[in-house]
Amino acid sequence: MARQRLSLSKVTQTLTDLDSFLADCQQRVEAALRQFLPDTDTLPTQLHAAMRYAVLDGGKRIRPVLVYAAGHALGARGKQLDVAACAIECIHVYSLIHDDLPAMDDDDLRRGKPSCHKAFGEAEAILAGDALQAQAFYLLSHADMGGIPAPQRLAMIERLALASGSRGMVGGQAIDLAAVGKTLGIAELEDMHIHKTGMLIRAAVLLGALCAENADETLTRALDHYGKYIGLAFQVQDDILDVTGNTEQLGKQAGADRALDKPTYPALLGLAGARERAQELHSAALEALSDLDENADPLRWISQYIVERST
Amino acid sequence: MARQRLSLSKVTQTLTDLDSFLADCQQRVEAALRQFLPDTDTLPTQLHAAMRYAVLDGGKRIRPVLVYAAGHALGARGKQLDVAACAIECIHVYSLIHDDLPAMDDDDLRRGKPSCHKAFGEAEAILAGDALQAQAFYLLSHADMGGIPAPQRLAMIERLALASGSRGMVGGQAIDLAAVGKTLGIAELEDMHIHKTGMLIRAAVLLGALCAENADETLTRALDHYGKYIGLAFQVQDDILDVTGNTEQLGKQAGADRALDKPTYPALLGLAGARERAQELHSAALEALSDLDENADPLRWISQYIVERST
Repeated sequence: MARQRLSLSKVTQTLTDLDSFLADCQQRVEAALRQFLPDTDTLPTQLHAAMRYAVLDGGKRIRPVLVYAAGHALGARGKQLDVAACAIECIHVYSLIHDDLPAMDDDDLRRGKPSCHKAFGEAEAILAGDALQAQAFYLLSHADMGGIPAPQRLAMIERLALASGSRGMVGGQAIDLAAVGKTLGIAELEDMHIHKTGMLIRAAVLLGALCAENADETLTRALDHYGKYIGLAFQVQDDILDVTGNTEQLGKQAGADRALDKPTYPALLGLAGARERAQELHSAALEALSDLDENADPLRWISQYIVERST
Repeated sequence: MARQRLSLSKVTQTLTDLDSFLADCQQRVEAALRQFLPDTDTLPTQLHAAMRYAVLDGGKRIRPVLVYAAGHALGARGKQLDVAACAIECIHVYSLIHDDLPAMDDDDLRRGKPSCHKAFGEAEAILAGDALQAQAFYLLSHADMGGIPAPQRLAMIERLALASGSRGMVGGQAIDLAAVGKTLGIAELEDMHIHKTGMLIRAAVLLGALCAENADETLTRALDHYGKYIGLAFQVQDDILDVTGNTEQLGKQAGADRALDKPTYPALLGLAGARERAQELHSAALEALSDLDENADPLRWISQYIVERST
């Protein structure tokens, strides 16, 4: 991970710059998460240890990176982006903890280490997930966001709660569970993914935009469209990696979807068709950004990264 | 349940009035919950059915009643109290669903019917709980609260998130799980209950107070103290009922705490000592209200009800 401080204004459009941007964002959100999660000396210590175990030192932090990149595109900086980035990541990690539970996907491995319930037991893992969800909303309502007005903070909470609830991420997981062993069409598969992963990724982009002072409505809407396309692209690539990746690279069980007989893009469209779909979504995401200047470049690189990543 | 509409201004200090007040509040929050939860036609239908199954037609609604009573004490009315009452109840019910899971307390019965995971399966129950938590914060950030300013709504979200997270309700459940089979002193037992049930009850009182326009700071603080005492009194009486009640009356398994060898007030203080403690807390709650006028009478009756209830 890069050691320099985040200097969003200095990035230019090269692959090295993307690497540097990602590393800066990852470093920044890691430091903020360490600060914003109760430490392991705070009672109940075991619960806080489980929360920190699941959240810290792991993952690509795509959602926080999107918060920073979207905020950067509209001129937001600093603390307000840290808070929004951490809130999104808390929601994402809670969903991973619960999805991994024996009653759900029953995964032993997550982010290259034992999943939370393997390390801390099932009861503690359920509670750690529950507490991380509460922590996300606590941060958005409580933490210093550098003077963002209350109505804008409320709008972030509203969007995050909608994107993560029964008509968003949790709803998508319910559809996913019900779909195991069933034959889904491409429209149904897409609907599931829009809920399960798409809405939270889209919310990450929007929360970043909402951190900007006087965010222009047209540009915010453009960013929201961008978020919609890359949210879906992310899942298409995830399905592709489940076929082409290996367990060590992914930090989770490769082939898990096939083993569970879950519907996937490669299963429905073939591997080539799935790759084509990912590229279409990438193009649509870039098109959505056509009215934004070079401050939106990190968003453009991330879209490319999403469909070209190997982990 | 009473059929007349809620008329908070007409209540006077008799037992009939308490019954009427409770019935009015229960009817009011039931109607609001029906309105504020996604209906069972909304996808994913099974998830929404599980959420409505767990939330509707059940429970004493003590926390919503406290929202109404605290709001009434400071002159708040109507929609804003409905939203806050529903948000608190969504958090409470999600905690019941998760506490009942096999990995937690493993309870088959809740509010006189099969617990959520018995009726809908474990995965759906985990998700229904998760979605209800999100719904609580969605309501406080999204629903029409009759013009309550954004900073006050943010303050409600902050308080609810803190009271329900790792340093509140979820933390208390973690302490409780860790305490099974251990010898706790009275101070440790009280600390557990302050977190597990006390903080959410206290938050209910405070959210009601925060719904009032220009809530006086001294009176709000007095209400917060009241909430602290009755939150603990509620748990003492719950422990007493676990010894003296029966399963049919309680709508959940009587003697469950003893069966799990959980520490309780009667176990530590004896039944008479536990009853004395409940009365002390009731007196302290009334004392906290000494500067409030007759609009706080429902709060006074509720305190009495809490320590005298048999279910």
